[in-house]
Amino acid sequence: MLVIMRDRATQAEIDHVVANLKEAGAEAHLSVGEEKTIIGVIGDRGIIYNLDLEGLPGVEQVIRVLKPYKLVSRDFQPEDTVVAVRGSEVGGGALAAIAGPCSIESEEQMVAAARAVARAGATMLRGGAFKPRTSPYAFQGLGLDGLKLLRAAGDETGLPVVTELLDVRDAEQVAGHADVLQVGARNCQNFMMLEELGRMDVPVLLKRGPSTTIEELLSAAEYILKGGNRAVILCERGIRTFETYTRNTLDLSAVAALKSLTHLPVIVDPSHATGRRDLVSRMCRAGLAAGADGIMVEVHPDPEHARCDGPQSLTTNEFELLMASLDPVVGIEGKSWGSL
Amino acid sequence: MLVIMRDRATQAEIDHVVANLKEAGAEAHLSVGEEKTIIGVIGDRGIIYNLDLEGLPGVEQVIRVLKPYKLVSRDFQPEDTVVAVRGSEVGGGALAAIAGPCSIESEEQMVAAARAVARAGATMLRGGAFKPRTSPYAFQGLGLDGLKLLRAAGDETGLPVVTELLDVRDAEQVAGHADVLQVGARNCQNFMMLEELGRMDVPVLLKRGPSTTIEELLSAAEYILKGGNRAVILCERGIRTFETYTRNTLDLSAVAALKSLTHLPVIVDPSHATGRRDLVSRMCRAGLAAGADGIMVEVHPDPEHARCDGPQSLTTNEFELLMASLDPVVGIEGKSWGSL
Amino acid sequence: MLVIMRDRATQAEIDHVVANLKEAGAEAHLSVGEEKTIIGVIGDRGIIYNLDLEGLPGVEQVIRVLKPYKLVSRDFQPEDTVVAVRGSEVGGGALAAIAGPCSIESEEQMVAAARAVARAGATMLRGGAFKPRTSPYAFQGLGLDGLKLLRAAGDETGLPVVTELLDVRDAEQVAGHADVLQVGARNCQNFMMLEELGRMDVPVLLKRGPSTTIEELLSAAEYILKGGNRAVILCERGIRTFETYTRNTLDLSAVAALKSLTHLPVIVDPSHATGRRDLVSRMCRAGLAAGADGIMVEVHPDPEHARCDGPQSLTTNEFELLMASLDPVVGIEGKSWGSL
Amino acid sequence: MLVIMRDRATQAEIDHVVANLKEAGAEAHLSVGEEKTIIGVIGDRGIIYNLDLEGLPGVEQVIRVLKPYKLVSRDFQPEDTVVAVRGSEVGGGALAAIAGPCSIESEEQMVAAARAVARAGATMLRGGAFKPRTSPYAFQGLGLDGLKLLRAAGDETGLPVVTELLDVRDAEQVAGHADVLQVGARNCQNFMMLEELGRMDVPVLLKRGPSTTIEELLSAAEYILKGGNRAVILCERGIRTFETYTRNTLDLSAVAALKSLTHLPVIVDPSHATGRRDLVSRMCRAGLAAGADGIMVEVHPDPEHARCDGPQSLTTNEFELLMASLDPVVGIEGKSWGSL
Repeated sequence: MLVIMRDRATQAEIDHVVANLKEAGAEAHLSVGEEKTIIGVIGDRGIIYNLDLEGLPGVEQVIRVLKPYKLVSRDFQPEDTVVAVRGSEVGGGALAAIAGPCSIESEEQMVAAARAVARAGATMLRGGAFKPRTSPYAFQGLGLDGLKLLRAAGDETGLPVVTELLDVRDAEQVAGHADVLQVGARNCQNFMMLEELGRMDVPVLLKRGPSTTIEELLSAAEYILKGGNRAVILCERGIRTFETYTRNTLDLSAVAALKSLTHLPVIVDPSHATGRRDLVSRMCRAGLAAGADGIMVEVHPDPEHARCDGPQSLTTNEFELLMASLDPVVGIEGKSWGSL
Repeated sequence: MLVIMRDRATQAEIDHVVANLKEAGAEAHLSVGEEKTIIGVIGDRGIIYNLDLEGLPGVEQVIRVLKPYKLVSRDFQPEDTVVAVRGSEVGGGALAAIAGPCSIESEEQMVAAARAVARAGATMLRGGAFKPRTSPYAFQGLGLDGLKLLRAAGDETGLPVVTELLDVRDAEQVAGHADVLQVGARNCQNFMMLEELGRMDVPVLLKRGPSTTIEELLSAAEYILKGGNRAVILCERGIRTFETYTRNTLDLSAVAALKSLTHLPVIVDPSHATGRRDLVSRMCRAGLAAGADGIMVEVHPDPEHARCDGPQSLTTNEFELLMASLDPVVGIEGKSWGSL
Repeated sequence: MLVIMRDRATQAEIDHVVANLKEAGAEAHLSVGEEKTIIGVIGDRGIIYNLDLEGLPGVEQVIRVLKPYKLVSRDFQPEDTVVAVRGSEVGGGALAAIAGPCSIESEEQMVAAARAVARAGATMLRGGAFKPRTSPYAFQGLGLDGLKLLRAAGDETGLPVVTELLDVRDAEQVAGHADVLQVGARNCQNFMMLEELGRMDVPVLLKRGPSTTIEELLSAAEYILKGGNRAVILCERGIRTFETYTRNTLDLSAVAALKSLTHLPVIVDPSHATGRRDLVSRMCRAGLAAGADGIMVEVHPDPEHARCDGPQSLTTNEFELLMASLDPVVGIEGKSWGSL
Repeated sequence: MLVIMRDRATQAEIDHVVANLKEAGAEAHLSVGEEKTIIGVIGDRGIIYNLDLEGLPGVEQVIRVLKPYKLVSRDFQPEDTVVAVRGSEVGGGALAAIAGPCSIESEEQMVAAARAVARAGATMLRGGAFKPRTSPYAFQGLGLDGLKLLRAAGDETGLPVVTELLDVRDAEQVAGHADVLQVGARNCQNFMMLEELGRMDVPVLLKRGPSTTIEELLSAAEYILKGGNRAVILCERGIRTFETYTRNTLDLSAVAALKSLTHLPVIVDPSHATGRRDLVSRMCRAGLAAGADGIMVEVHPDPEHARCDGPQSLTTNEFELLMASLDPVVGIEGKSWGSL
């Protein structure tokens, strides 16, 4: 941590900061320049994280050199984490293709979707049983009944299933039916949910929140790893910006950056990011070219009658074409699909 | 709802949209212009909310005229909602001054803060027992012990107490010790928590999330009112933008806008919005001048040793000066402090 | 400038950075911690500004302690700059009320607007002759003819006139007719225009661009002061964020922050920021309460027939009410209207 | 254009809007629903563009169906525009690889860069003679001398040259030395410069501004086409968002979207977007995979001593590796490099 003092900071102000640091158990190293004095702070991680010096008299700026996360960083673990789920893998060169409907609507719909995506090469099946919706008047999902339909469709096709955990109180129940628990974008910094998942033994798919920075996303993942659960997959699904033509702005530079900052696998979700079916395929290709370890795509046997997110869902036929079109980008960094 | 067709949409595409609408139980009214056809959609609220027509062939844009909320709107209830809490009021001309430390640290700190803010004219006491922190390594609050200290300080000073509910599983317990439950910015769209609070009989202080639009904030409040709980106070606490000099950007236009869109009281939290002690007082005055029904301010008897958010906390002395400085703006719209 | 090295930076990488600094003429001070080495860089302003060390091997982050501006800062000049224009003043306790139509449309309109705003207490008259419009098909202003109408209206009412300079090639001509030249938001970082204005002897009203940071705005003003022209008024007019209910987001925290960072006067333009007539008055009051040195408001004798920005223009009657409503906030920081 | 009236709009308010429309020369079509009345507006493009109805009593929202641009849209011209420059092409299946230093520093540097990028397969050479810099104290470029060095290096290698036009007054002079004139991000909505370029006969590379929407970028291009110059290349170079790890956020969804909205070629500039050398190659691959018609990359023979943007510049060796790595993505949509 570095404390930059104002140009005209007095000696008393500098002494006061130094005394404050010593009291907290940290060491202070002064560097006195012509215009500015800079105080380097050295000490235990636990002490440094809790120092708030910005408000002291004479302080201009405080620079935190220590990252708020540790276990998720590549500095801590240089080799890739591989998350293995029922014969499917993601990370360490294995790519995931997670596909399925936004919401589970019926046995017929779920089975049709599952068969189609399995045939086209998907490595995991997705489906939402509990739907977070902006308006309380919109369709909220089938709940537990939906979960059972998803499980059955997964069993039939042999695909591991991914579903969102919306209520922390349901964690055990949902984990009883699903192979991967998804933390939705709006819960990215729901620390109680993250801590609960940290205590469980189930792979977690953690979506970046719409205004979560890269550093905050990694800190959120740190909550899970700190609890003991190391099977975390990160997912870039678009950030909120001023541009409204697309629903969100898919931040592929963040994917490239995350690949060097962390050992965790990183996938992209162009369906939610763009909200527009006609952009999904191009953004899947772009995502893999940017270094992502997989894609997550909404596929519906009949998008026009989908009860949720129809406009961004691919038909099963479109998904088949998409998977075929990914061939040139799959191998760019020497990766391959992670299904066994 | 309006469906704008593309310039070259075919008759078959138009017919297809119309058939789709009829199937869903809605009515279609065509308006055929020289360049474009526009389809007006009329029907039941429940049907309209679940229509997703953006992906149909030939559709350029879908405009939702119907708001995703209803009970919170001024169209539904023109007169102001007044939230009354143990002899303190907010809304309908009554202003709230909610003050206290970011986190509860000790009995001594809590009592000193409570006495000072009560003396200076605060109408409610705040304090955090469960702290949501970006990093799992930062101080996480005293928990239940903190709640008891807050309750005692409130009882001694006669101030109602406000505290954040961080874990939906603790709702009943926290409500047993606090008078107002705060939903933090990161939980603004935690729909499970909102639904739980909708079923309870306790005033709720709902903070706008860092990237929540005005419409989404109102929809979040709608979840609570729809459950039966009408005692909701909205709080603008800064949105996330590209500007980093301040921690967030306090969106006072949103306050002015909310006052005409909803009957619920709206307060501002300049401490979290700016993250800088030297900007807090000016932004409190600006907030009330913009039409807010109150302010929420972090006050600490010894900010330099605060375990959380010290840099943005006022000293008890600064808070006293702030309250005195608010006189000119309090009466602008004919309001007055809501303490009895 | 501080160079933070990566955790595992080698000695060779550190030596390489130091050698690089020496070659450029700067001094390096090493601070070797347990986990990280930090290099403090000391040297001449001209050298420091041009160092780009981010890409060197082993470098994690470069922190620029030196601000990119100097003449505009309060550190350089603690006392307020007062910009005086034909018997009107802004800054140093003098408040400006700049009012008039978005675009000059006719002699009748301009004279009616000028008389009304003068009567209501405006200290300067505004009007656009050259209109920057998103679409090339929208009304682009009356040009030179408009300028002459503005000048005449100003002369008749005794108000100094403010107008936008849109084309750097017109600088001398526009300065021949106007008392204050406005640099529009889209030209905030048009450095050629800023340099030209720096060489002229005319007060400049510099609007913050929609995505210009506080630091960039101050650096833009620095271009003008560096050229020798010290009569600069800054104007906050809303930044672009994800919120679309208002046209832009009026950043009043930036106003409060600018007042401590710079000695230049700072005004607010709620008309352009909100784009909504019903929010203008509240945001004018909020702006002054936040510490602004004035307001800039669009007023039109007949907004319904305005050729530009009618929806955000006040009627002359509304402006009169607004001015009267400002009384409580004018004196908060001991200021008064700057008309002589 | 559609005018949505408020729920409780009176008949008088509706009549007033209709009268207003008729007076302006437009037709009004009423659609009276149970809760709302919607007024469809039909009329001449010139009339519609200048209607500002938002402020009329009873009006809730105005929806503009007509785009602010026309000539640049695919509806107007379905086939791709191909911009041909001295034996190099971009658009219509031809990909551009524009490479060279951020700023021209010396003959030696320029020639070394030019030879290296030509050898590696670049189709055009870039170099900045006039540098727009946030701070007036940073290196501002060599000016006319730089232009001559660029021209010479282009002539020697046979590559067409691209350079930024910073001052509209220099348009003719710069066009005398360069093959393509670049409009920088900060000038994206400098309408005077766009109009000037519209009157000239020189290809233009128009960069998207940091907070320019897709619609505004297309409207800016429309200014040039409207003037008669149809040789415009669009360039996505990152938008400004809350994320600060990368300098800007490269918006590749916008690239995919632009390809369907316009017939103009669209390229990407990952160097400026990310500001980080280690992300450039991945984002070039992602950009082409997203459908871009080319890349623009900063290459410097000795980035550590570059006077501008060294941290994001590739070495000549890295550029060679990048070009080789693009093979898998070049052909995805059946495109090929546009050098003859």
